Amino acid sequence: MSTYKSLTSELKRIHALSQISGLLEWDEQVNLPENSGDFRAQQSSVMAGIVHREATNPKIGEWLSELSEDSSLSTQQNVVIKEARKNYDRRTKFPEDFVAHKAGHLSKAYHAWVNAKTDNDFAGYVPFLEKNIQLAKEEAAFLGQADNPYDYWIDCFDPGFNAETIERIFDPLQAELVPLVQEILQSSISADTSCLKGFPVEKQESFMRMVTSKLGFDYSRGRIDRSVHPFCSGCGFDTRMTTRFFENNPLDSLFSSIHETGHGLYEQGLPLEHIGTGLGEAAGMAVHESQSRLWENQVARSREFWNYWEPVYRETFKGQLAEVSGDNLYLAINSVSLNPIRVDSDEVTYNLHILLRFRIEKALFDGSLAVKDLPGEWNRLSKEIIGLEPRNDAEGVLQDVHWSGAAFGYFPSYCLGNLLAAQLWYKLLEEKPSILEEVTVGNFDTILDWLRANVHQHGQQYYAVDLTKKVTREDLSHKSLIRYLKERYLPLYTP
Amino acid sequence: MSTYKSLTSELKRIHALSQISGLLEWDEQVNLPENSGDFRAQQSSVMAGIVHREATNPKIGEWLSELSEDSSLSTQQNVVIKEARKNYDRRTKFPEDFVAHKAGHLSKAYHAWVNAKTDNDFAGYVPFLEKNIQLAKEEAAFLGQADNPYDYWIDCFDPGFNAETIERIFDPLQAELVPLVQEILQSSISADTSCLKGFPVEKQESFMRMVTSKLGFDYSRGRIDRSVHPFCSGCGFDTRMTTRFFENNPLDSLFSSIHETGHGLYEQGLPLEHIGTGLGEAAGMAVHESQSRLWENQVARSREFWNYWEPVYRETFKGQLAEVSGDNLYLAINSVSLNPIRVDSDEVTYNLHILLRFRIEKALFDGSLAVKDLPGEWNRLSKEIIGLEPRNDAEGVLQDVHWSGAAFGYFPSYCLGNLLAAQLWYKLLEEKPSILEEVTVGNFDTILDWLRANVHQHGQQYYAVDLTKKVTREDLSHKSLIRYLKERYLPLYTP
Repeated sequence: MSTYKSLTSELKRIHALSQISGLLEWDEQVNLPENSGDFRAQQSSVMAGIVHREATNPKIGEWLSELSEDSSLSTQQNVVIKEARKNYDRRTKFPEDFVAHKAGHLSKAYHAWVNAKTDNDFAGYVPFLEKNIQLAKEEAAFLGQADNPYDYWIDCFDPGFNAETIERIFDPLQAELVPLVQEILQSSISADTSCLKGFPVEKQESFMRMVTSKLGFDYSRGRIDRSVHPFCSGCGFDTRMTTRFFENNPLDSLFSSIHETGHGLYEQGLPLEHIGTGLGEAAGMAVHESQSRLWENQVARSREFWNYWEPVYRETFKGQLAEVSGDNLYLAINSVSLNPIRVDSDEVTYNLHILLRFRIEKALFDGSLAVKDLPGEWNRLSKEIIGLEPRNDAEGVLQDVHWSGAAFGYFPSYCLGNLLAAQLWYKLLEEKPSILEEVTVGNFDTILDWLRANVHQHGQQYYAVDLTKKVTREDLSHKSLIRYLKERYLPLYTP
Repeated sequence: MSTYKSLTSELKRIHALSQISGLLEWDEQVNLPENSGDFRAQQSSVMAGIVHREATNPKIGEWLSELSEDSSLSTQQNVVIKEARKNYDRRTKFPEDFVAHKAGHLSKAYHAWVNAKTDNDFAGYVPFLEKNIQLAKEEAAFLGQADNPYDYWIDCFDPGFNAETIERIFDPLQAELVPLVQEILQSSISADTSCLKGFPVEKQESFMRMVTSKLGFDYSRGRIDRSVHPFCSGCGFDTRMTTRFFENNPLDSLFSSIHETGHGLYEQGLPLEHIGTGLGEAAGMAVHESQSRLWENQVARSREFWNYWEPVYRETFKGQLAEVSGDNLYLAINSVSLNPIRVDSDEVTYNLHILLRFRIEKALFDGSLAVKDLPGEWNRLSKEIIGLEPRNDAEGVLQDVHWSGAAFGYFPSYCLGNLLAAQLWYKLLEEKPSILEEVTVGNFDTILDWLRANVHQHGQQYYAVDLTKKVTREDLSHKSLIRYLKERYLPLYTP
């Protein structure tokens, strides 16, 4: 067997193993009996050790060295090698005692965060967060990025971006989005979501399955189950999404499910034969998020989508919707309001939450903001960017789990994904002008085919920055998202 | 850390890993999307390789050698070492090419069996079965049992037994059971099960959950789901049972579920702190089966059990049971009839199917029966022991999957489990004379406590033969089962 074949075969074996780790987590969220947690933690830890050992096998390093000198390899093969090298380095360049020390600390930091949030006590969390930042900097240094630790972390989640490129995109976004939000909120029109009550969970589920199947999710290679927080895991061979249901908030479940379906469709669209290598893996968090958001927002919050689905929805929930007009329903689907909590925010104000977090992370890493001063700065920026101050730290700086796990540089991806979704959407409309007519009659094939051809099939050949340029012939920017939000929301909120 | 502690810690780590393999199988039966099978097969195979490598780590062999010379170890510690040695030898004494060759052949043999059964074509299956027997003999030889391959296989599933000890028990069983079955079948009374139709699956499930909880299954450390064939997997930390439902055969599901609950209660009763070592593992298939059968048959087919549950059952299935008298219901629960298929047989005739298989397996291994002559001998013995001849080989010699996987010596355990269940039951009645009164009022705690104390807590300290002697003060024999069947069935079938 050639060295290249040996490498890809081994990468796929390691992928199959790491997917077992993923299944343990999925099962933990979906199926695990309440008192089986300790044993599952042990299993996950043992499995993580096995995956790490397999992924750091020196023979992989030898193959990679050998292949780095092979000039006969194709561009695609070099993508596989580049990604494998990146993963191998990230696995092998940290001293074992650092990895163990970090894992031990993160476990404590997570519990410290839970307690701090519960007790609204930021002070008790300060030393843990300080240590997390310190560890994040040390980790960057091991990979030669001591001078740019925040860039290192951004690159981990979204290769191709760094703090500077993001700032160049986020600055004009903020300048246009803040007044747009004000304009919408000052409207005399506001959505009445209180009318959506008493939707039986079984009926919500059957409607959701109808919709997600119609969007193209292949249930013969995937599932959707229930968990406290919706997520999508697995890979294209076996894609496992989750959602949740509230009787008095049917739209939450429906749009969460469509969001996860967007992630799921991306996983199912990656080339099966390359899964486990760079040619068969997602191109980063922003691209992943662009897929979930495009389906959730551009498609499923559109008038055309509801032209098709409203009759079925009304048939399913006859009693509950009897007094709700079509306009009211559509306004509820596109309601905008200020919320101190990121995850409870609508698609317009959501981006403000990310702009805030990006400023904070950047300042924490460039040294201009000390952890102890975080709450004050958070609240000041909250007022400035979002337009409200949280009532307390639990609803403010302590609301997200990410930093307790030293996941810095992750937040920007959410907003970058929204930007990419809007930019892809307008390109799609340009290339396939009849899309909205198709959506009106419940045909989503053209959208999925276009995403398959322009995004999914490429794997990691193009990261977000290059993919945007390749598909839309423009750099990623704030323009399409602002255009989209204006086109969708201003008519709705103009009396 | 002492060598003993190192060993048990490593055994528990390997157990956690092998339980991951088990979870992959459970998930395959319960959750796997229809087109995800190939990927799951790859995952299972990779995981099996990992478990094998960990379990054959030479350091385990070194620890075991060191500990074999340590005279300071307790009796319990020596149980752990003995079981670990046995597992280690079984893992390490087969040449790698033999293991690979066998795995490859078994896969083909399985498909050959499926085809043979579908096409009722035994001849096509002959070479595969011959090879399976050959491989089974070779495997025995690697462990020094070339002269007694069938004994080796019996010991794999049920340590402590061999063909001779089993024959000494089965011969008198056959002598008494065959006429007893005739007596029951010749009765003018027969159960009418046709009245049990149209039982909604959701109601069956909720009744089943009520019953199994009441019997003591701890759902905070376990689950029950649906699969094509009921089974129980996992361990006491996370016990996963499955069952199935038929609208027109509600008793099948209920008794299958209670059967699996018996297995589950055993797993949950093994000492948690020793799981993964010989002190925390089941003492063989016969003991396991004794637990499932005792709950399914001695307990749940008793008049007292139904005195308690019948009102709830009637309340749950008001319409369906309106025309069914209590006597008819109880007779349906204890119906006896000849069936060519083992798995569809009742608790009385089931044992005849095992007697038949034991005779056949013994003859195949001692050379007195050639594979090509199997169907004729099967049909002859069927007539002699069970009292009917199968209509064809698909319903006869080809009905079971076991031999296609070279699982010889497994069948006897089912019947040995029935014998042990009956023997334990009478000892329990002797020591706790008020048991049946407690069952009548829905109290099952004394039964479970007694099984915990007398069976579950011992792990592999006593195999079936020694356990029987220790608990009942008598050798395992046919007597209690015959007594039980006579006491339960003769009054029912005597006009």
